[in-house]
Amino acid sequence: MNSEEKTLVEIIDGNNQIDLAKYINYVSAPQAGAIATFSGTTRDTFEGKTVVELRYEAYLPMAIKNLKSICSAARSSWDLHSIAVAHRLGIVPVGETSVFVVVSATHRADALDACKFLIDELKASVPIWKKEVYSDGEVWKENPEFLERRLELGKDVGCCRRKIETAAHDKKSCCKPKVKVEEAID
Amino acid sequence: MNSEEKTLVEIIDGNNQIDLAKYINYVSAPQAGAIATFSGTTRDTFEGKTVVELRYEAYLPMAIKNLKSICSAARSSWDLHSIAVAHRLGIVPVGETSVFVVVSATHRADALDACKFLIDELKASVPIWKKEVYSDGEVWKENPEFLERRLELGKDVGCCRRKIETAAHDKKSCCKPKVKVEEAID
Repeated sequence: MNSEEKTLVEIIDGNNQIDLAKYINYVSAPQAGAIATFSGTTRDTFEGKTVVELRYEAYLPMAIKNLKSICSAARSSWDLHSIAVAHRLGIVPVGETSVFVVVSATHRADALDACKFLIDELKASVPIWKKEVYSDGEVWKENPEFLERRLELGKDVGCCRRKIETAAHDKKSCCKPKVKVEEAID
Repeated sequence: MNSEEKTLVEIIDGNNQIDLAKYINYVSAPQAGAIATFSGTTRDTFEGKTVVELRYEAYLPMAIKNLKSICSAARSSWDLHSIAVAHRLGIVPVGETSVFVVVSATHRADALDACKFLIDELKASVPIWKKEVYSDGEVWKENPEFLERRLELGKDVGCCRRKIETAAHDKKSCCKPKVKVEEAID
Protein backbone atom coordinates (compact mmCIF):
# COMPACT_ATOMS: atom_id res chain seq x y z
CA MET A 1 0.00 0.00 0.00
CA ASN A 2 1.20 3.47 -0.90
CA SER A 3 0.47 6.70 0.90
CA GLU A 4 0.93 9.15 -1.98
CA GLU A 5 -1.96 10.13 -4.26
CA LYS A 6 -1.49 8.71 -7.74
CA THR A 7 -3.16 8.48 -11.14
CA LEU A 8 -2.50 5.70 -13.64
CA VAL A 9 -3.84 5.49 -17.20
CA GLU A 10 -2.97 2.40 -19.24
CA ILE A 11 -3.93 1.27 -22.71
CA ILE A 12 -3.23 -2.45 -23.03
CA ASP A 13 -2.59 -3.85 -26.46
CA GLY A 14 -2.24 -7.45 -27.56
CA ASN A 15 -3.94 -10.35 -25.86
CA ASN A 16 -3.09 -9.41 -22.27
CA GLN A 17 -5.95 -9.54 -19.79
CA ILE A 18 -6.51 -6.64 -17.40
CA ASP A 19 -5.12 -7.60 -14.00
CA LEU A 20 -7.82 -6.24 -11.66
CA ALA A 21 -5.84 -6.98 -8.49
CA LYS A 22 -2.88 -4.94 -9.76
CA TYR A 23 -5.03 -1.81 -10.20
CA ILE A 24 -6.90 -2.32 -6.91
CA ASN A 25 -3.56 -2.60 -5.12
CA TYR A 26 -2.35 0.51 -6.94
CA VAL A 27 -5.14 2.68 -5.46
CA SER A 28 -5.12 1.07 -1.99
CA ALA A 29 -3.74 3.23 0.79
CA PRO A 30 -3.96 3.42 4.59
CA GLN A 31 -5.77 6.79 4.27
CA ALA A 32 -8.41 5.47 1.84
CA GLY A 33 -11.47 3.92 3.49
CA ALA A 34 -13.31 3.33 0.21
CA ILE A 35 -12.53 1.74 -3.15
CA ALA A 36 -15.07 1.69 -5.99
CA THR A 37 -14.49 -0.19 -9.24
CA PHE A 38 -16.21 -0.69 -12.57
CA SER A 39 -15.39 -3.45 -15.07
CA GLY A 40 -16.82 -3.49 -18.58
CA THR A 41 -16.76 -7.01 -19.99
CA THR A 42 -17.64 -8.54 -23.36
CA ARG A 43 -21.09 -10.08 -23.13
CA ASP A 44 -22.37 -12.94 -25.21
CA THR A 45 -25.35 -11.32 -26.91
CA PHE A 46 -26.46 -8.00 -28.33
CA GLU A 47 -30.07 -7.52 -29.37
CA GLY A 48 -30.54 -11.27 -29.69
CA LYS A 49 -27.40 -11.83 -31.78
CA THR A 50 -24.63 -14.10 -30.51
CA VAL A 51 -21.47 -12.06 -29.91
CA VAL A 52 -18.22 -13.97 -30.40
CA GLU A 53 -15.80 -11.21 -29.40
CA LEU A 54 -15.25 -7.47 -29.40
CA ARG A 55 -12.37 -5.70 -31.09
CA TYR A 56 -11.26 -2.29 -29.86
CA GLU A 57 -9.31 0.36 -31.71
CA ALA A 58 -8.26 3.76 -30.44
CA TYR A 59 -6.69 6.98 -31.60
CA LEU A 60 -3.99 6.52 -28.97
CA PRO A 61 -2.50 10.02 -28.36
CA MET A 62 -5.97 11.51 -28.04
CA ALA A 63 -7.31 8.56 -25.98
CA ILE A 64 -4.53 8.88 -23.39
CA LYS A 65 -4.84 12.67 -23.30
CA ASN A 66 -8.61 12.45 -22.79
CA LEU A 67 -8.30 9.75 -20.11
CA LYS A 68 -5.84 11.91 -18.15
CA SER A 69 -8.13 14.88 -18.58
CA ILE A 70 -11.19 13.07 -17.14
CA CYS A 71 -9.07 11.87 -14.20
CA SER A 72 -8.15 15.51 -13.48
CA ALA A 73 -11.80 16.51 -13.78
CA ALA A 74 -12.75 13.80 -11.26
CA ARG A 75 -10.10 15.03 -8.81
CA SER A 76 -11.43 18.57 -9.04
CA SER A 77 -14.99 17.41 -8.26
CA TRP A 78 -14.42 14.86 -5.48
CA ASP A 79 -11.94 14.28 -2.68
CA LEU A 80 -10.04 11.32 -4.12
CA HIS A 81 -6.90 9.46 -3.19
CA SER A 82 -5.85 7.46 -6.26
CA ILE A 83 -7.29 6.60 -9.67
CA ALA A 84 -6.44 3.87 -12.18
CA VAL A 85 -8.02 3.43 -15.61
CA ALA A 86 -7.09 0.58 -17.94
CA HIS A 87 -8.48 -0.15 -21.41
CA ARG A 88 -7.67 -3.09 -23.66
CA LEU A 89 -7.32 -2.77 -27.40
CA GLY A 90 -7.62 -5.56 -29.95
CA ILE A 91 -9.69 -8.69 -29.43
CA VAL A 92 -11.56 -9.11 -26.12
CA PRO A 93 -13.36 -12.48 -25.96
CA VAL A 94 -16.71 -13.00 -24.20
CA GLY A 95 -16.40 -12.74 -20.40
CA GLU A 96 -13.12 -10.82 -20.40
CA THR A 97 -12.72 -7.24 -19.15
CA SER A 98 -12.19 -4.53 -21.76
CA VAL A 99 -12.16 -1.53 -19.42
CA PHE A 100 -11.49 -1.18 -15.70
CA VAL A 101 -11.89 1.94 -13.57
CA VAL A 102 -10.89 2.00 -9.90
CA VAL A 103 -10.97 4.92 -7.49
CA SER A 104 -9.96 5.21 -3.84
CA ALA A 105 -11.07 7.92 -1.43
CA THR A 106 -11.35 8.59 2.27
CA HIS A 107 -15.16 8.40 2.06
CA ARG A 108 -17.40 6.13 0.05
CA ALA A 109 -19.64 8.69 -1.66
CA ASP A 110 -16.59 10.28 -3.29
CA ALA A 111 -15.25 6.95 -4.56
CA LEU A 112 -18.62 5.74 -5.88
CA ASP A 113 -19.63 8.99 -7.57
CA ALA A 114 -16.20 9.54 -9.15
CA CYS A 115 -16.11 5.94 -10.46
CA LYS A 116 -19.47 6.44 -12.20
CA PHE A 117 -18.35 9.82 -13.58
CA LEU A 118 -15.11 8.34 -14.95
CA ILE A 119 -16.73 5.46 -16.86
CA ASP A 120 -19.52 7.70 -18.18
CA GLU A 121 -16.99 10.31 -19.34
CA LEU A 122 -14.73 7.62 -20.82
CA LYS A 123 -17.64 6.39 -22.95
CA ALA A 124 -18.59 9.95 -23.91
CA SER A 125 -15.26 11.54 -24.71
CA VAL A 126 -12.47 9.03 -25.31
CA PRO A 127 -11.90 8.02 -28.94
CA ILE A 128 -12.06 4.23 -28.57
CA TRP A 129 -14.21 2.30 -31.00
CA LYS A 130 -15.41 -1.27 -30.86
CA LYS A 131 -16.32 -3.83 -33.46
CA GLU A 132 -18.87 -6.42 -32.38
CA VAL A 133 -18.10 -9.73 -34.03
CA TYR A 134 -21.25 -11.84 -34.24
CA SER A 135 -21.56 -15.45 -35.28
CA ASP A 136 -22.99 -14.13 -38.58
CA GLY A 137 -21.10 -10.90 -39.25
CA GLU A 138 -19.53 -7.87 -37.63
CA VAL A 139 -20.20 -4.17 -37.14
CA TRP A 140 -18.25 -1.15 -35.84
CA LYS A 141 -20.03 0.65 -33.03
CA GLU A 142 -19.69 3.95 -31.29
CA ASN A 143 -20.91 4.64 -27.82
CA PRO A 144 -24.08 6.73 -28.11
CA GLU A 145 -22.70 9.14 -25.51
CA PHE A 146 -19.66 9.75 -27.71
CA LEU A 147 -21.89 10.55 -30.65
CA GLU A 148 -24.11 12.81 -28.52
CA ARG A 149 -21.09 14.68 -27.16
CA ARG A 150 -19.73 15.25 -30.65
CA LEU A 151 -23.12 16.46 -31.85
CA GLU A 152 -23.21 18.87 -28.90
CA LEU A 153 -19.87 20.22 -30.06
CA GLY A 154 -21.40 20.93 -33.45
CA LYS A 155 -19.35 18.36 -35.30
CA ASP A 156 -20.89 16.43 -38.15
CA VAL A 157 -20.51 12.66 -37.67
CA GLY A 158 -21.85 11.75 -41.09
CA CYS A 159 -18.43 11.80 -42.72
CA CYS A 160 -16.83 9.06 -44.83
CA ARG A 161 -20.22 8.27 -46.38
CA ARG A 162 -21.28 6.34 -43.30
CA LYS A 163 -24.83 5.37 -42.55
CA ILE A 164 -25.94 6.02 -38.95
CA GLU A 165 -28.61 3.92 -37.27
CA THR A 166 -29.72 4.64 -33.70
CA ALA A 167 -31.45 1.92 -31.71
CA ALA A 168 -34.35 2.68 -29.36
CA HIS A 169 -33.29 4.14 -26.03
CA ASP A 170 -33.86 2.09 -22.90
CA LYS A 171 -34.83 4.24 -19.92
CA LYS A 172 -33.04 2.35 -17.16
CA SER A 173 -29.66 1.83 -18.75
CA CYS A 174 -27.66 4.68 -20.13
CA CYS A 175 -25.30 2.38 -22.04
CA LYS A 176 -27.98 0.27 -23.71
CA PRO A 177 -28.59 2.23 -26.91
CA LYS A 178 -26.03 1.57 -29.56
CA VAL A 179 -25.18 3.53 -32.64
CA LYS A 180 -24.42 1.31 -35.55
CA VAL A 181 -21.93 2.76 -37.98
CA GLU A 182 -21.76 0.80 -41.19
CA GLU A 183 -19.78 1.50 -44.31
CA ALA A 184 -22.11 2.48 -47.13
CA ILE A 185 -21.88 0.17 -50.12
CA ASP A 186 -21.36 1.85 -53.48
CA MET B 1 -18.25 -18.17 -15.21
CA ASN B 2 -21.82 -19.13 -14.43
CA SER B 3 -24.89 -18.36 -16.45
CA GLU B 4 -27.50 -18.52 -13.67
CA GLU B 5 -28.44 -15.45 -11.61
CA LYS B 6 -27.25 -15.80 -8.02
CA THR B 7 -27.11 -13.95 -4.72
CA LEU B 8 -24.49 -14.61 -2.04
CA VAL B 9 -24.39 -13.10 1.44
CA GLU B 10 -21.46 -14.00 3.71
CA ILE B 11 -20.45 -12.89 7.19
CA ILE B 12 -16.80 -13.76 7.73
CA ASP B 13 -15.62 -14.29 11.27
CA GLY B 14 -12.11 -14.76 12.59
CA ASN B 15 -9.04 -13.27 10.96
CA ASN B 16 -9.83 -14.28 7.38
CA GLN B 17 -9.43 -11.60 4.75
CA ILE B 18 -12.17 -11.01 2.19
CA ASP B 19 -11.12 -12.65 -1.09
CA LEU B 20 -12.21 -10.00 -3.61
CA ALA B 21 -11.42 -12.19 -6.65
CA LYS B 22 -13.68 -14.97 -5.33
CA TYR B 23 -16.71 -12.65 -5.20
CA ILE B 24 -15.91 -10.98 -8.52
CA ASN B 25 -15.72 -14.43 -10.13
CA TYR B 26 -18.98 -15.38 -8.42
CA VAL B 27 -20.92 -12.57 -10.17
CA SER B 28 -19.13 -12.85 -13.53
CA ALA B 29 -21.23 -14.27 -16.36
CA PRO B 30 -21.21 -14.25 -20.17
CA GLN B 31 -24.49 -12.26 -20.11
CA ALA B 32 -23.16 -9.57 -17.77
CA GLY B 33 -21.37 -6.68 -19.49
CA ALA B 34 -20.85 -4.70 -16.28
CA ILE B 35 -19.48 -5.38 -12.80
CA ALA B 36 -19.45 -2.69 -10.09
CA THR B 37 -17.78 -3.18 -6.72
CA PHE B 38 -17.37 -1.32 -3.47
CA SER B 39 -14.78 -2.13 -0.78
CA GLY B 40 -14.84 -0.52 2.64
CA THR B 41 -11.40 -0.67 4.24
CA THR B 42 -10.01 0.34 7.63
CA ARG B 43 -8.27 3.68 7.32
CA ASP B 44 -5.48 4.93 9.51
CA THR B 45 -7.02 8.08 10.95
CA PHE B 46 -10.35 9.42 12.10
CA GLU B 47 -10.68 13.11 12.95
CA GLY B 48 -6.94 13.41 13.46
CA LYS B 49 -6.66 10.36 15.72
CA THR B 50 -4.49 7.42 14.72
CA VAL B 51 -6.65 4.33 14.17
CA VAL B 52 -4.93 1.03 14.95
CA GLU B 53 -7.75 -1.32 13.91
CA LEU B 54 -11.51 -1.67 13.73
CA ARG B 55 -13.51 -4.38 15.49
CA TYR B 56 -16.89 -5.38 14.13
CA GLU B 57 -19.74 -7.10 15.93
CA ALA B 58 -23.12 -8.04 14.54
CA TYR B 59 -26.48 -9.40 15.59
CA LEU B 60 -26.03 -12.25 13.13
CA PRO B 61 -29.57 -13.59 12.42
CA MET B 62 -30.87 -10.08 11.82
CA ALA B 63 -27.75 -9.00 9.88
CA ILE B 64 -28.06 -11.90 7.42
CA LYS B 65 -31.84 -11.43 7.10
CA ASN B 66 -31.39 -7.70 6.40
CA LEU B 67 -28.57 -8.29 3.91
CA LYS B 68 -30.74 -10.74 1.96
CA SER B 69 -33.60 -8.28 2.10
CA ILE B 70 -31.57 -5.40 0.62
CA CYS B 71 -30.34 -7.73 -2.15
CA SER B 72 -33.98 -8.51 -3.01
CA ALA B 73 -34.81 -4.81 -2.96
CA ALA B 74 -31.93 -4.13 -5.39
CA ARG B 75 -33.17 -6.85 -7.75
CA SER B 76 -36.65 -5.34 -7.77
CA SER B 77 -35.26 -1.89 -8.68
CA TRP B 78 -32.60 -2.73 -11.28
CA ASP B 79 -31.99 -5.40 -13.92
CA LEU B 80 -29.22 -7.34 -12.21
CA HIS B 81 -27.46 -10.61 -12.89
CA SER B 82 -25.69 -11.58 -9.67
CA ILE B 83 -24.94 -10.00 -6.29
CA ALA B 84 -22.39 -10.86 -3.60
CA VAL B 85 -22.04 -9.12 -0.24
CA ALA B 86 -19.37 -10.07 2.30
CA HIS B 87 -18.74 -8.51 5.73
CA ARG B 88 -15.97 -9.33 8.16
CA LEU B 89 -16.50 -9.46 11.91
CA GLY B 90 -13.84 -9.16 14.61
CA ILE B 91 -10.59 -7.29 14.14
CA VAL B 92 -9.90 -5.62 10.76
CA PRO B 93 -6.43 -4.00 10.68
CA VAL B 94 -5.66 -0.77 8.79
CA GLY B 95 -5.72 -1.29 4.99
CA GLU B 96 -7.81 -4.47 5.06
CA THR B 97 -11.33 -4.76 3.64
CA SER B 98 -14.21 -5.00 6.12
CA VAL B 99 -17.08 -5.01 3.63
CA PHE B 100 -17.27 -5.86 -0.08
CA VAL B 101 -20.25 -5.44 -2.39
CA VAL B 102 -20.18 -6.63 -6.01
CA VAL B 103 -22.95 -6.53 -8.58
CA SER B 104 -23.11 -7.73 -12.17
CA ALA B 105 -25.65 -6.62 -14.77
CA THR B 106 -26.09 -6.50 -18.51
CA HIS B 107 -25.71 -2.72 -18.48
CA ARG B 108 -23.44 -0.47 -16.47
CA ALA B 109 -25.97 1.96 -15.02
CA ASP B 110 -27.80 -0.92 -13.32
CA ALA B 111 -24.62 -2.36 -11.81
CA LEU B 112 -23.30 1.03 -10.59
CA ASP B 113 -26.58 2.29 -9.13
CA ALA B 114 -27.38 -1.02 -7.42
CA CYS B 115 -23.87 -1.20 -5.92
CA LYS B 116 -24.28 2.27 -4.39
CA PHE B 117 -27.77 1.39 -3.13
CA LEU B 118 -26.53 -1.83 -1.51
CA ILE B 119 -23.68 -0.25 0.46
CA ASP B 120 -25.85 2.72 1.50
CA GLU B 121 -28.64 0.37 2.65
CA LEU B 122 -26.16 -1.92 4.39
CA LYS B 123 -24.89 1.03 6.42
CA ALA B 124 -28.44 2.21 7.15
CA SER B 125 -30.24 -1.00 8.02
CA VAL B 126 -27.90 -3.88 8.90
CA PRO B 127 -27.11 -4.30 12.62
CA ILE B 128 -23.30 -4.33 12.44
CA TRP B 129 -21.40 -2.15 14.89
CA LYS B 130 -17.78 -1.11 14.86
CA LYS B 131 -15.32 -0.18 17.54
CA GLU B 132 -12.54 2.17 16.47
CA VAL B 133 -9.36 1.32 18.32
CA TYR B 134 -7.09 4.37 18.49
CA SER B 135 -3.54 4.57 19.71
CA ASP B 136 -4.94 6.26 22.86
CA GLY B 137 -8.31 4.57 23.46
CA GLU B 138 -11.33 3.05 21.75
CA VAL B 139 -14.96 3.87 21.00
CA TRP B 140 -18.00 1.99 19.68
CA LYS B 141 -19.58 3.68 16.69
CA GLU B 142 -22.82 3.39 14.82
CA ASN B 143 -23.25 4.48 11.24
CA PRO B 144 -25.17 7.75 11.25
CA GLU B 145 -27.51 6.36 8.58
CA PHE B 146 -28.38 3.47 10.90
CA LEU B 147 -29.27 5.91 13.68
CA GLU B 148 -31.29 8.10 11.31
CA ARG B 149 -33.23 5.09 9.98
CA ARG B 150 -34.06 3.98 13.50
CA LEU B 151 -35.19 7.48 14.42
CA GLU B 152 -37.39 7.51 11.32
CA LEU B 153 -38.99 4.30 12.57
CA GLY B 154 -39.87 6.07 15.83
CA LYS B 155 -37.50 4.04 17.96
CA ASP B 156 -35.62 5.66 20.82
CA VAL B 157 -31.87 5.04 20.56
CA GLY B 158 -31.04 6.52 23.95
CA CYS B 159 -31.32 3.20 25.75
CA CYS B 160 -28.75 1.62 28.11
CA ARG B 161 -27.90 5.07 29.51
CA ARG B 162 -25.70 5.82 26.52
CA LYS B 163 -24.48 9.26 25.59
CA ILE B 164 -24.92 10.20 21.92
CA GLU B 165 -22.58 12.65 20.21
CA THR B 166 -23.09 13.60 16.55
CA ALA B 167 -20.21 15.07 14.59
CA ALA B 168 -20.72 17.89 12.09
CA HIS B 169 -22.06 16.75 8.75
CA ASP B 170 -19.82 17.05 5.71
CA LYS B 171 -21.75 17.95 2.57
CA LYS B 172 -19.82 15.93 0.03
CA SER B 173 -19.56 12.60 1.81
CA CYS B 174 -22.59 10.82 3.15
CA CYS B 175 -20.51 8.47 5.28
CA LYS B 176 -18.34 11.09 6.92
CA PRO B 177 -20.38 11.99 10.00
CA LYS B 178 -20.03 9.52 12.80
CA VAL B 179 -22.17 8.96 15.83
CA LYS B 180 -20.14 8.27 18.88
CA VAL B 181 -21.83 5.99 21.36
CA GLU B 182 -20.06 5.91 24.66
CA GLU B 183 -21.06 4.17 27.86
CA ALA B 184 -22.07 6.74 30.51
CA ILE B 185 -19.99 6.53 33.63
CA ASP B 186 -21.95 6.22 36.90
